[in-house]
Order: sequence, then structure tokens, then C-alpha cells
Amino acid sequence: MRSIEWVPDGPAVRMIDQRRLPGRLEFLTLRRPEDVAAAIADMAIRGAPAIGAAAAFGLALAGSRSDAGDSAALWEELESASSILRASRPTAANLGWALERVLRAGRAVIGDGPQAVRQVLVEAAQRLADEDVEINRRIGQHGAALIPDGGTVIHHCNTGALATVDYGTALGVIRSAHEAGKRVHVLVDETRPRLQGSRLTAWELEQYGITYDIISDGAAGYFLRSGKISAVLIGADRVAANGDVANKIGSYMLALAANDNHVPFYCVVPTSTIDLGLPSGESIPIEERDPAEVLHLEVAGERVAPETSQARNPAFDITPNRLLSAFVTEVGVLRPPYPAALASAVERARDS
Amino acid sequence: MRSIEWVPDGPAVRMIDQRRLPGRLEFLTLRRPEDVAAAIADMAIRGAPAIGAAAAFGLALAGSRSDAGDSAALWEELESASSILRASRPTAANLGWALERVLRAGRAVIGDGPQAVRQVLVEAAQRLADEDVEINRRIGQHGAALIPDGGTVIHHCNTGALATVDYGTALGVIRSAHEAGKRVHVLVDETRPRLQGSRLTAWELEQYGITYDIISDGAAGYFLRSGKISAVLIGADRVAANGDVANKIGSYMLALAANDNHVPFYCVVPTSTIDLGLPSGESIPIEERDPAEVLHLEVAGERVAPETSQARNPAFDITPNRLLSAFVTEVGVLRPPYPAALASAVERARDS
Repeated sequence: MRSIEWVPDGPAVRMIDQRRLPGRLEFLTLRRPEDVAAAIADMAIRGAPAIGAAAAFGLALAGSRSDAGDSAALWEELESASSILRASRPTAANLGWALERVLRAGRAVIGDGPQAVRQVLVEAAQRLADEDVEINRRIGQHGAALIPDGGTVIHHCNTGALATVDYGTALGVIRSAHEAGKRVHVLVDETRPRLQGSRLTAWELEQYGITYDIISDGAAGYFLRSGKISAVLIGADRVAANGDVANKIGSYMLALAANDNHVPFYCVVPTSTIDLGLPSGESIPIEERDPAEVLHLEVAGERVAPETSQARNPAFDITPNRLLSAFVTEVGVLRPPYPAALASAVERARDS
Repeated sequence: MRSIEWVPDGPAVRMIDQRRLPGRLEFLTLRRPEDVAAAIADMAIRGAPAIGAAAAFGLALAGSRSDAGDSAALWEELESASSILRASRPTAANLGWALERVLRAGRAVIGDGPQAVRQVLVEAAQRLADEDVEINRRIGQHGAALIPDGGTVIHHCNTGALATVDYGTALGVIRSAHEAGKRVHVLVDETRPRLQGSRLTAWELEQYGITYDIISDGAAGYFLRSGKISAVLIGADRVAANGDVANKIGSYMLALAANDNHVPFYCVVPTSTIDLGLPSGESIPIEERDPAEVLHLEVAGERVAPETSQARNPAFDITPNRLLSAFVTEVGVLRPPYPAALASAVERARDS
């Protein structure tokens, strides 16, 4: 089962509504690109690679729905849909990358008329989704070697099948080690404020038969100091050219605690998350989300704090490259110096 | 209003039920030492100095309730009550310190008969509570100088009037700076799993008229990297002779993030929290509490994670002395080297 897929009859995009998990496995069927943008903004679908696939399918929807009679009129609608999708969330690099890729495919056949463009948009989005699964499996194979048999690892947020089209990035590495017969235990950061760890990662690990304990985010340091943790794994929403990483809020403090205890800290990403256009993490846009996510308890909807309280709610932070032991990508494990390693990885991925 | 007080008619101990805040301000009136122990264990009252006062009053209750006809029989009952109170929570140094102090006062008059002992126990507990307020005000005065006018500080857990008999330790320093006319803004770590920050510290700051924003614990690193934070303040449950600090889970990662950004990190404690009998943090007992605190959402009582999920829930962690900029105590601000500074502070406090 994929977290997101194209429904040719409709046409529509069907996705798991991740806001309902783990209580209910429900699906959304969306027919308009603006509905896909809203699903991304409201985190019915989240995780950088899954957001990329959603945006790609959103653009395919825009094409399929359009009754434009010529390519120019169609292209105008596509650019408008692309803007709406691009604005849904600012931090994940995969969103812009996926839109660019699907638009480029359409642009290549623009001379063949609007029907050809529509057809190519759907094919390009579908190919992107298929490749995401394939890429994640390759990432998993490269990364599994980094997980020792019998080891306990710490994982932040959700980077599994739900955060991608299928299989996962950092969680894919853990799955791959497990599938290779290694015993691995996961400490799952609950990941406030939206609890992607306790809600989504725990739900996935249950299904894979991988043992785990949920911990509050602040407890990771305690366990890292215990000397019993083999590695820490995160995904990323955007990686700058110098290797600085934007990822779910809390990643930076986790990286500091791993480093202070000489525990390897791995960032696991498809090369589509690497943004060579940004020199460092300082230039990565950080989304600040609704304070209600902090002030109210997810799931229950009850307010925690006094009625008059305010909150700040940055959704991501920057982990500086010096705190990373390696990147794991579909073209292999990248070690410092990162600027050269990342540039070369992007090039190899493009050529493959 | 004190968080805890002695009710002579009864006799009884009256305390704010901190589990009900911020929604409801309710009081518990407890008549038996085992009820006080249960209130400590279930965190109706929490915070190392408040736990100390509760244990002291619990012992006074044991004396007052006893109908022992001679001192030996009374002393047996007191030792039994002391054991029950001591076992209620393991990490806070103030608990054992307060029990010892009250028992010592009783022991001094044991030759005068059981009625004299009963009387002295109540007086000793009352004096301990009164002194706690006075000590906190002195701590606040020493610490206020460390808070710059116009500064923003990060605060973890709750260390205010609720965590003490009145006024507070780390939060007392912030109050003291505010009362001295300094503008200070507080970023309040929500402090999972029990949310003492969003529930208790926010409630207190509302009443003091100090501005604040609540943040999820993992977001502290983001704000520390912004260059806009003047200081980080925590309390402590126990300080070892070398300056290692046991405090609410998450403190260690917060200290790492402060250090990585050259932001001063202060531990604010009465000298009664300093345990010179323990050489380092490695010997401090760390309580692991009910996994349900992580798996269920406080307040709402709803389960977050899949029904079959397990959790680990250490309540405290150890922050190594190298990460501390200073201790703030009632006898002044202590700078490294900590072993000598802490020993001298305990001695000065005892002599004063």
C-alpha cells in the first residue's frame, strides 16, 4: 500500500489521511490541485518525498481537469496550479524539485498540443512516484550496513512509508537492516508538537514487527548518555550545498546530544532533497506553524496552557554540517567534506 | 498564597493540587503521612523544594496523629512514616534533607517526652517552610543581576512558587528581575511528558504579568541559534558534589544547545538541593515513571500511540558540570571550580 497514488478514473489523487493515524486508517480522494495543496498545508500528507509526489500528482490533476483548447492556455493554468502547490509548505526541497521536474516534462511536448501535455504530466508524476520507492530501497540497502546487529537506534519524526511514496528514508534504513536479519530496537522520539513519532512511526514499526519504545524528545539525551545507543537517524526536508540540514524541529538538539556522546548521527535523504542552490542552512526558509499545535494537544483537541497563553511554533530547525557523521543517499553513503560529496551525489543521481 | 501549608486545626497539610492546573485551582487537605507520600508520588505536589516541605509536614502529621504514650513508641512511628515519605520519589535531594532536619529537631527533645517531640516536629517543619520562602527571595536577588534588561530567557519545567513553598528558584530569579523593573521575556519549554511548562509555569507567569511564549522542548535549539537568547535557567532536583545536576528530563539537551551557542546556562537551587555525599551525577538515582505519561496525553487522557506501543519514561537526566555557567544559590552565585564552590556554599548556608 502506497501513502499516495494516482487514480486514473476520476482522475484523482488518493492518499492516506495521516492526521487520523494511528486511530483510523482513512483515505482522502482529491480531485483539484488546490485540495492537494490544502492537504499538504494541513499535513494530511507530510514528509519531504511524499510532499514532492503529492505536488507532482497535483500538477497532473491540474492538467487533466483543464479543458483548455490550446497549449498556451493550458500552460497558464499549470503555472497557476504550480504556484498554489509551491506555496503550500516552504521548507521541503522536494516540493519545488517535483514541480520543476513534471513541468519540464510537459514543456518538452508543448508543441504537440494540450492533450500530449496532459498525458505527459500524468506519466511524469507517476514515474516520479515509482522512482521514489525504488530510490528508498536503494537508500535502505546503502544504510543498512551502518546499523549493527543487536543495536538500538534513535529515530526522530516520521521518515517511513508515510513520509515517502513507500518504504521510507531513515526508517527505510532501519527496515532494510531488519529485513536483512539484524536485530534492531528503535527509540522513537514522540516528536512534539504533532507527535509524528508516537502516532506514525510507532504505527509503522508495529506493522514491520520491529521492536521499539516511544520516548519524549527531551529523553534522547538521557539514553545517548547511557552508552547503549548505536546510531541516530533522521531524514531531512532540505539539505544545503554545504551539508547543513533543515529537518523537523528538535533535530539540532538531538544531533548535539549524539555528538557529545560520540554516537554516529546520520541524515538519510534522496538526492532530490539536496538543494545545491542554497549555500548554507542560514538560507533555508523555516516555516512557523500555528501556535495551536503547541497550545492544544493533538488528537484530543484539549487546550493545555492557560487560555491567554501564546506560543511559538517553528516546524524545522537547522543542524549544522559539523554535527553529521554521514549522509545516506540512493547513490551511497557520503562522508565529509560535504560540499564536494553532495555535488557529486546529485550529479551521479541525475546521470543514472 | 503558598503552594503548601500547615493547618493547625486538624491537623492537616493543605496543598494546591498541581495536577488540576491551569484549568482549576483546587486544594488537597491531607491528614495522614501516607497521603502526603501518595501526593508526592502522583505529583499533586512536585518541585524539589516543595517536595521537601511536603515531607517535613508529612512527618509533623505523623507525630501529631500518633497517640504513642512514650517517646520510644512515637519514634518508631516517626521512622516508619519517614521511610514511607522517603520512598515517594527518589531523585529530589530536598526530600531526604528535609526529613533529616525535622527528625534531628525531634531527636534533640526526645528526653522531654512525646508531647514535646510532637510540638518540635511541627515547629521544625513550619520553620523549614518559612525559610524556603526567605531563601528563594535571596536566590532571586543574587540571580536577578544575571538577567539583562530587555532580554529573552529560556526556562525548563516549573521552578516557581508551585515548585517551592513560595516565590521559586529559577523562576524566582526571573520574577526578581521583573520586580526590579527589567523587561524580560520568557520562552517556556512545555516540558513533556507532564507539561509542567505549559500548565504550571505559564499559569504563574500570567499572574506575575511577565510576557512569555510556550515552545515545544525540541524548539529551544532553534531559538538559541537565533542569537536572541540571553540566558537559560533551570532548577535542579539534586546537585552532586562535583556540580553535575539531576533535573527534569530534557535539561541536558538544553544545556548542550546553550553551550553550542555560547548562551549562559544557569542552575538555580537552594543549598538544600546540593548533595555533597554523592561524588558525581553518575551516582544520582534517576526515577523512571509510568510509560502512560508518554503514551497518553496529559489532561485529555487520550492515547496517542498505537494500543500495543511501549514507552520509556525517565523523569530526570544528568547535566554534566562542564555545561554549567554558574549555580545561583541563597549564598550567592557560584562559578567553577564547582567542588570547592559547592562545599563552601553548603558550609556558609549552614552557618548563617
